[in-house]
Amino acid sequence: MEEYDEKDLRDCKELIEPYIHYTPVLSSRLINEIIGAKVYFKCENFQRSGAYKMRGATHAILKLSPDQRAKGVVTHSSGNFAQALALAAQSLGVTAYIAMPSDAPVVKKSAVINYGGKIVECEPNLDARKATAAKVASETGASFLHPSNDRDVILGQGTACMEFLEDYPELDFIFVPVGGGGLIAGTALASHFFSKGAKVIGTEPYEVDDAYRSFHSGRIETNLTTNTIADGLKTVLGDRTLPIILRLVDRIIRVEEEEIVSAMRLIWERMKIVVEPSSAVALAGLIRTTEDYKNSTIGVILSGGNVDLSKLPF
Amino acid sequence: MEEYDEKDLRDCKELIEPYIHYTPVLSSRLINEIIGAKVYFKCENFQRSGAYKMRGATHAILKLSPDQRAKGVVTHSSGNFAQALALAAQSLGVTAYIAMPSDAPVVKKSAVINYGGKIVECEPNLDARKATAAKVASETGASFLHPSNDRDVILGQGTACMEFLEDYPELDFIFVPVGGGGLIAGTALASHFFSKGAKVIGTEPYEVDDAYRSFHSGRIETNLTTNTIADGLKTVLGDRTLPIILRLVDRIIRVEEEEIVSAMRLIWERMKIVVEPSSAVALAGLIRTTEDYKNSTIGVILSGGNVDLSKLPF
Repeated sequence: MEEYDEKDLRDCKELIEPYIHYTPVLSSRLINEIIGAKVYFKCENFQRSGAYKMRGATHAILKLSPDQRAKGVVTHSSGNFAQALALAAQSLGVTAYIAMPSDAPVVKKSAVINYGGKIVECEPNLDARKATAAKVASETGASFLHPSNDRDVILGQGTACMEFLEDYPELDFIFVPVGGGGLIAGTALASHFFSKGAKVIGTEPYEVDDAYRSFHSGRIETNLTTNTIADGLKTVLGDRTLPIILRLVDRIIRVEEEEIVSAMRLIWERMKIVVEPSSAVALAGLIRTTEDYKNSTIGVILSGGNVDLSKLPF
Repeated sequence: MEEYDEKDLRDCKELIEPYIHYTPVLSSRLINEIIGAKVYFKCENFQRSGAYKMRGATHAILKLSPDQRAKGVVTHSSGNFAQALALAAQSLGVTAYIAMPSDAPVVKKSAVINYGGKIVECEPNLDARKATAAKVASETGASFLHPSNDRDVILGQGTACMEFLEDYPELDFIFVPVGGGGLIAGTALASHFFSKGAKVIGTEPYEVDDAYRSFHSGRIETNLTTNTIADGLKTVLGDRTLPIILRLVDRIIRVEEEEIVSAMRLIWERMKIVVEPSSAVALAGLIRTTEDYKNSTIGVILSGGNVDLSKLPF
């Protein structure tokens, strides 16, 4: 893996602080009883743009030179990174181009537009999205920023865990969902440098268990299908995220779709907060393996709260 | 109106503090922009039992003598006061009997049972509920506690506003939903004694606008129908709540059902928190009259977060 040190993370945190929220940590007596442990939830659903992605997006833009910033940034995403990059760019006076598939839901397009992002439509497949982003980059000179497989993005995502450890230094385990791996890689780095030995545990739907397979094979695995409600976790690991995960992550747990919905319902009903299915995957993983974590102190990163209220699974 | 003084409220707050949550206050940049004012939300949806009712229920039980407590408490309610009384009684080692209509939703019955409450079923009408509660009281010696028209309940509900003013002493206006009037009466007392002149404004669905009519006629008005999504606001004022409202409340605003759903959606989507329709009524009232409150500092009490996720209006 690439070299990272404490200072990289500290500098990142200081740099992005003015542009992001220091998010609160919540807990629930009932959930503590169900798990048989002290469980703390880091609420990145309350982060600006509604997800932790704001951290990495802000950091990646701030690390660009003034010349680069003047030419804008571009990414391909139809999810939370698209919204986060649009909002981070708007906050910093930078133009953000987002390559989005023509069939992306209107609600996702509107969110990007509301944050001032410029949507460039393309065919609904990953190759077309990559090609479109590359074309925009070459035509405008905009800097391409990958949603997860990017050093500055990974560092930015790690700041959620740094805040978490400032508030709860005694965590034994930290549960996070795994999609492209930016959040778990950043969390693993932050835990490595700043925790008292907290183990980082990834959670993933069975339907897209590429990270589980990659964790065991040591190379980037892909998914043949992506039939999961956790739409933020359909992407696969990259050559920057996988090595960190292999080196610093303790375990990856897979969960069934019903377990995701049931964990999501538990969070909504008991904690009275709106989280997206991808966030519920972390709690679902913990509930599934609760016997392994009795009486410990556990952190769960609730990654985001962007859901389409017209399409709830309840 | 009855006599109330600062000390009544201070004593109440001190008495119930060990049993309730000091709830957080949230805000949203987007909602501030929509309203054109600084708007702060007191999150009683995060209160124990999921609603501010926990405050009044706890206070009313704590004011009973040891002999009275030993015989239990009884109320008639199928809503948040039933849950709150059950949980408050459980926390204090007291038996709570709840007269509930036989057709009450299973989810509401389960909540009461989970908190250790004893349900006494009755015919689904208010007279039967009152008669059943009276019968339980006479048979068991349990003390009857009214969900809103009770001095100790009113004082308890006022503590939400006291906390709010501790955190935000500069509020110009405080918006609260009105059902039986316990919350608004307590809020009006707290604002009268502890704010720098903040005006208290009630909000109510057009479908059950008894409080609006009572506010203007000076006597307790009733509702012929109660076709509102805000199920916590179907009850009418009482002889203890109305006089306080007449004396200390500034205005009552009525809202349409679509406005309630739309305000609820705005809170869920933008603030990422789960609130019930009755809570959304307060923001709906503010949105409807936003021109009257530009550039001021406004508090909104989000009364609760107990919703049946299987029956959402989105």
